[in-house]
Amino acid sequence: MRSDLDALFHPRSIAVVGASPDPEKMGHRYVRILKEFGFPGPIYPIHPKAPDILGLRAYPSLLDVPGTVDYVISCIPAPNILELVEECARKGVRLIHSYTARFRETGRHDAASLEQEFLRRARQAGIRILGPNCMGLYYPKMGISFKHNMAREPGTVGVLSQSGGNAVEMVFDGSLRGLRFSKVISYGNAVDLNEADFMEYFADDLETQVVCAYIEGVKEGRRFFRALKRAAQRKPVVVLKGGRTSAGRRAVASHTASLAGERELWRALVRQAGAVRVDTMEEMVDTAIAFAFCKPGTGLRVGVVGGGGGRSVASADECEEVGLWVVPIPDDMRRAWRELDPSVADWLGNPADGSILQGSPLTVERVLDMMADHPVFDILIANVGEHFPLEHPDGIPRTRATVQAFIQTAKRACKPLAVVLGDTLAHQPWQREVMRELREALASAGVATFPTVRRAGLALRRLATYYRERSEEHAYARP
Amino acid sequence: MRSDLDALFHPRSIAVVGASPDPEKMGHRYVRILKEFGFPGPIYPIHPKAPDILGLRAYPSLLDVPGTVDYVISCIPAPNILELVEECARKGVRLIHSYTARFRETGRHDAASLEQEFLRRARQAGIRILGPNCMGLYYPKMGISFKHNMAREPGTVGVLSQSGGNAVEMVFDGSLRGLRFSKVISYGNAVDLNEADFMEYFADDLETQVVCAYIEGVKEGRRFFRALKRAAQRKPVVVLKGGRTSAGRRAVASHTASLAGERELWRALVRQAGAVRVDTMEEMVDTAIAFAFCKPGTGLRVGVVGGGGGRSVASADECEEVGLWVVPIPDDMRRAWRELDPSVADWLGNPADGSILQGSPLTVERVLDMMADHPVFDILIANVGEHFPLEHPDGIPRTRATVQAFIQTAKRACKPLAVVLGDTLAHQPWQREVMRELREALASAGVATFPTVRRAGLALRRLATYYRERSEEHAYARP
Repeated sequence: MRSDLDALFHPRSIAVVGASPDPEKMGHRYVRILKEFGFPGPIYPIHPKAPDILGLRAYPSLLDVPGTVDYVISCIPAPNILELVEECARKGVRLIHSYTARFRETGRHDAASLEQEFLRRARQAGIRILGPNCMGLYYPKMGISFKHNMAREPGTVGVLSQSGGNAVEMVFDGSLRGLRFSKVISYGNAVDLNEADFMEYFADDLETQVVCAYIEGVKEGRRFFRALKRAAQRKPVVVLKGGRTSAGRRAVASHTASLAGERELWRALVRQAGAVRVDTMEEMVDTAIAFAFCKPGTGLRVGVVGGGGGRSVASADECEEVGLWVVPIPDDMRRAWRELDPSVADWLGNPADGSILQGSPLTVERVLDMMADHPVFDILIANVGEHFPLEHPDGIPRTRATVQAFIQTAKRACKPLAVVLGDTLAHQPWQREVMRELREALASAGVATFPTVRRAGLALRRLATYYRERSEEHAYARP
Repeated sequence: MRSDLDALFHPRSIAVVGASPDPEKMGHRYVRILKEFGFPGPIYPIHPKAPDILGLRAYPSLLDVPGTVDYVISCIPAPNILELVEECARKGVRLIHSYTARFRETGRHDAASLEQEFLRRARQAGIRILGPNCMGLYYPKMGISFKHNMAREPGTVGVLSQSGGNAVEMVFDGSLRGLRFSKVISYGNAVDLNEADFMEYFADDLETQVVCAYIEGVKEGRRFFRALKRAAQRKPVVVLKGGRTSAGRRAVASHTASLAGERELWRALVRQAGAVRVDTMEEMVDTAIAFAFCKPGTGLRVGVVGGGGGRSVASADECEEVGLWVVPIPDDMRRAWRELDPSVADWLGNPADGSILQGSPLTVERVLDMMADHPVFDILIANVGEHFPLEHPDGIPRTRATVQAFIQTAKRACKPLAVVLGDTLAHQPWQREVMRELREALASAGVATFPTVRRAGLALRRLATYYRERSEEHAYARP
């Protein structure tokens, strides 16, 4: 199986069947994207009449291509797919990525039969299928993508997603907060290669350090469970199940025509495998951010700094409600505070309310640093608290300095640290610009950012739980 | 009690004691804001030496002011507050808003005693206190504010918030999505006027149609419960309790020194009063948006349109998980679809997956319109699904048209409708600009927008539950 996926991910050449001169068609875009991303092998557009597409020589049929073709991207209508399989068989193609849709997911019997026949003939010819009804592969290191505006630099997060839209959302939203990806696989109806294949692959893939999976239905339950367990023992695996509710299962049927299993069964399966369950795409991105950027940690005792009084109360409540422990300030730290500023030392707590510290030598940044060094804190959350300083442009340098200090602490601290910075909704253009700049500074320094304390706390609790369970397993495992 | 609050909200003149020539000080800012917001009466800056502040004649003491003074904003240090009360008594002041902090919330015995003495002397003189330790009042219609960059136009949402920071967050975040406010009261330590007073006031206030309350602790339990119940019978009241957890209660102690009650007691109290409980500031803003902009409705059956397949599955799961019912498409609607486009009519469902409808005369906008007219749907959620069309600038007109169509349906539909539009995080400046423009178009048309389906669904479920409970109460009430 591994070798099939290697062929999938390292093709020597790619043909786009159904390539188009129309820039609005995906058959055009796949050619353009492969060119722009610098796919190193030959790219063959296949079009019945056009002599060239985007400056590349086009061929009327796959059989006219002079060299070998490993990988075919199909953008032709579904009724033509069987003919394409014949041509692929004769050409020695190893894998068809079928962007082509309107198979089983339409709910029509003839379309489902066609999908089965597609599979049968491909199997006969020894050709593997990615899809049908999917965006395919984003593998920046190999110059393969399904969107022109995804990052060119590779990263360490691997994604398997039955939905192309969710894969796009994951890459776009994650990359705005600094995530970069090893491979993202959108696999649609999964008539042949399925989630078990991809999970097995990611478990062994040295380029992938965190795995995110969006799954609507599982084809081979036992095999997938074994793969999930094995992957989760090696690296963090975050799983979002689509079709948890009866309405969700109906929606799955018309999307990728998968059989979406029972919610409770899924929860148990993910937990037993040692993977991390999330409930929304937002949580998926948040959790991937935590695993990709935060130092590992197993404890739940959180230290929180920054923001005003209301934010401090909210930080305390929300951290506790997601399962972290907001511990009181230890005596030795309070003694150190007394030396620095007796007027606030007995007043300040955890969370450390920034408004109390206005004008004090005991700054929010300094408190965070002390928490980073103190063993009573396992996890740190730092609020930028941008609402007040960014009321006037004069507050920009102060906010920049705060963010820089947080970055320094995050780099040297040996515990997970999350920075809370609001989203870029703001009234003034200069405020939006500063927020964007600050988020980019944090992202490019590899610091985990979250728009709210609740989301930061939830992601860090999941991180700590994952590492604790892993460490307990090792503690009791036979040597 | 009502008359005290009328004096508070309709002063004939305001003095800022501790006014400052330094633009960084709040004593400067309060003067500037009152000027800029056009407070109609005289504004008297009080400063020991400065002859004028911001072009207004300053007086060395309150007693030197020639006219009467109804309302005093105090920005002086806490130790000077008792002297100020004496002067206010002699001047006939009716209300002191004490921005001045560092009283009971410091945890120091002497500061708590000073706060009590402040109250005792004010009561003796018949002067009411707002605060201490609070931002005070934002009442745009009267030209009163505590931030220069809040909206000048009045609206219908009233806020009582023990935290100034949370009040600011509510106003800023809400107004970006179109909310406008009648009165926002930040009331801090609540040594005199407290949440019961403000809730009683909002219950009767004709300018306020939705009430939001952020409360850390209640001074007069029974009175507050009666006021909450009375207000909730008249208008939607949304309550966020700070200090729900033990860590949150510790944080409350150093913030407004309130006694934060038990979580379960609070939940029961809010439920019995018929008010709406939320758990974060984000949910508070979301719920206020739903009540301020959506038509009332009591049913839970939701129709969802737009976005791709993954988004449709997520919409279904998330709506069901927050307690809405994603009902199947009724037969008569499916028959109408067959006439418009037989190729998709049996495939499409609820949620109506936008990717199925590409190139079909049965557009997402049309499906939404049909759902608006069909009695099987009580509530509507429309995904703009901006990720795909806004990949290229060519997609701007299409996305604008979608949003305009959603606005038209929201205006004519007689049921709650929410639009889901992502936040302004986006890679390209033009994308951010379009998102901002679209959000503003929706906001200025009075359409409720949410960044995710889960948040939209939760807010609409709370809206429907509120109106259902109210209608059941009426159904069984004696005429």
